[in-house]
Amino acid sequence: MSTQAAVALVDWGTSNLRVWLVDAAAGVLGDRHSPEGMGTLTSDRFAGVLEAHLAALGAGPDLPVVVAGMAGARAGWVEAPYAEAPAGLIDLYRKAVCAPGIGRDVRILPGVCQRSAGAEDVMRGEETQLLGAVAGGLCDALFCLPGTHSKWVSLEGGRISRFTTVMTGELFQLVSRQSILRLSIGEGRAAAGHPAFRQAVEEALSTDFSLTTRLFSIRAQALLSGADESSAASRLSGLLLGAEIAAMRSRLDESRRVQLIGSGALTELYAAALILAGAEPVSLDGGELVRSGLFAAAKALFPHRFAEFAP
Amino acid sequence: MSTQAAVALVDWGTSNLRVWLVDAAAGVLGDRHSPEGMGTLTSDRFAGVLEAHLAALGAGPDLPVVVAGMAGARAGWVEAPYAEAPAGLIDLYRKAVCAPGIGRDVRILPGVCQRSAGAEDVMRGEETQLLGAVAGGLCDALFCLPGTHSKWVSLEGGRISRFTTVMTGELFQLVSRQSILRLSIGEGRAAAGHPAFRQAVEEALSTDFSLTTRLFSIRAQALLSGADESSAASRLSGLLLGAEIAAMRSRLDESRRVQLIGSGALTELYAAALILAGAEPVSLDGGELVRSGLFAAAKALFPHRFAEFAP
Repeated sequence: MSTQAAVALVDWGTSNLRVWLVDAAAGVLGDRHSPEGMGTLTSDRFAGVLEAHLAALGAGPDLPVVVAGMAGARAGWVEAPYAEAPAGLIDLYRKAVCAPGIGRDVRILPGVCQRSAGAEDVMRGEETQLLGAVAGGLCDALFCLPGTHSKWVSLEGGRISRFTTVMTGELFQLVSRQSILRLSIGEGRAAAGHPAFRQAVEEALSTDFSLTTRLFSIRAQALLSGADESSAASRLSGLLLGAEIAAMRSRLDESRRVQLIGSGALTELYAAALILAGAEPVSLDGGELVRSGLFAAAKALFPHRFAEFAP
Repeated sequence: MSTQAAVALVDWGTSNLRVWLVDAAAGVLGDRHSPEGMGTLTSDRFAGVLEAHLAALGAGPDLPVVVAGMAGARAGWVEAPYAEAPAGLIDLYRKAVCAPGIGRDVRILPGVCQRSAGAEDVMRGEETQLLGAVAGGLCDALFCLPGTHSKWVSLEGGRISRFTTVMTGELFQLVSRQSILRLSIGEGRAAAGHPAFRQAVEEALSTDFSLTTRLFSIRAQALLSGADESSAASRLSGLLLGAEIAAMRSRLDESRRVQLIGSGALTELYAAALILAGAEPVSLDGGELVRSGLFAAAKALFPHRFAEFAP
């Protein structure tokens, strides 16, 4: 029985699509990865793209599917209106919407929104990773998810209680490539081990730091003392990451341990900056978490597919 | 005698060139305005461009010229190395360089640099406006010069004692037109009278404000409550200007009065934000100030042209 597909799990983001065929014990029977992200598709194309991947995986016509991510955005496949923070797994599957007009049971999970005045925020996709962490037993923790828009999320009692999106990654790209600072940064790359990175993080963590009044110092340092491109890139990265972490100070005071979801160069920079701030980053795999979160939702949405494993 | 040209004054910025022919009493005999800024010229073209404008003004071949601005940058006409803050008028004319190889006495004034670690900074052009203010009797004051890169400058005893460049204008352009926020800002324009502007300035002036963690709220507000484009643009502008003014708090504590150099919509936004911060903006004309500063430098550099007016 365990090699029979129970459900297909889909993480459908802006730039990528990931499909897993899993059995009732969460064992992966097959998977697909594609650049057919929500950003590349009009709403009428999602069903066809999904069916093609399911066919390639040998999924039968009655296999149910759970989808998380930007496919549920207004400009995606079918809008799945946000669940409101604090939100737990139960809020996600209760607010899941059905993809209409296809001969298959496809449920699209909602994102999560936060309506606090001035700190309004939204997420689509990350909530499923976080609920994967809950499924793994991590119910009270502070998470940092680096990316174009990084997210800081507090889980309390298994619910997403509070979160903040920070545009650090996008600001780094825009400022390093298009502002006056591009003249000093050129092709330079930020490095966690560069003294300019460490110094900039520490500067940003000091009291009365203000990001925008420090950015131009990168250009001035290059003009006055010939700072090279990797110093300039590392300083920009350190100022931006340091400002982000400084803004999370009160949350870090409550929890020194930070669950850092991701991999690669950007995550390394975050880990280094967090350590400089006295935090303890712990690395987690985002792909595994989203699969766990989707699987937990699938068990709640399609209990008959898992009946034989019920206690 | 007073209708005879004593000197030509030139403000040569990145995007514009301004030439004034003045008599020994600073009376303007003629002026030219052109888009032939330093950014559009290779170093071999400056002399020809200047001579063409002087010829159009009827200036003789022995008329001396004083130039301020980006023409003295490394990538300009002839590099005039920076004077170091604190800097007064005497530092500028002592460090003026001659434009070589043309049959005319042309002196290019240096910019001013600041070498404080982490707050390294440079200016080219603004120093001449500030020394124009000194020539007008304003020797101890706090100045704010809005622009693509705004400058905050403290004058003490007629010297530029300390200054900070803030990339607010450039960040507004990049973030509003190219980041994810462009989807919510569209063609919206920031307005000083918009409630979203006032609210954002006040938010930015509150304790523990952090700019980068608030930017994404602009997108979330549009998604969650349908905030329109002018609200979004006004909120972005208010957050950026508020963050800039908040960073200047200690200087504003010393001097509530702020000399605001400029005109137009951006300066109006600064004036409104300064008033919300409890400051008293006073408006000054940048063109008049740079002419006064250039004239003061000319009198020091070419005393023989002004001899008949000496006491």
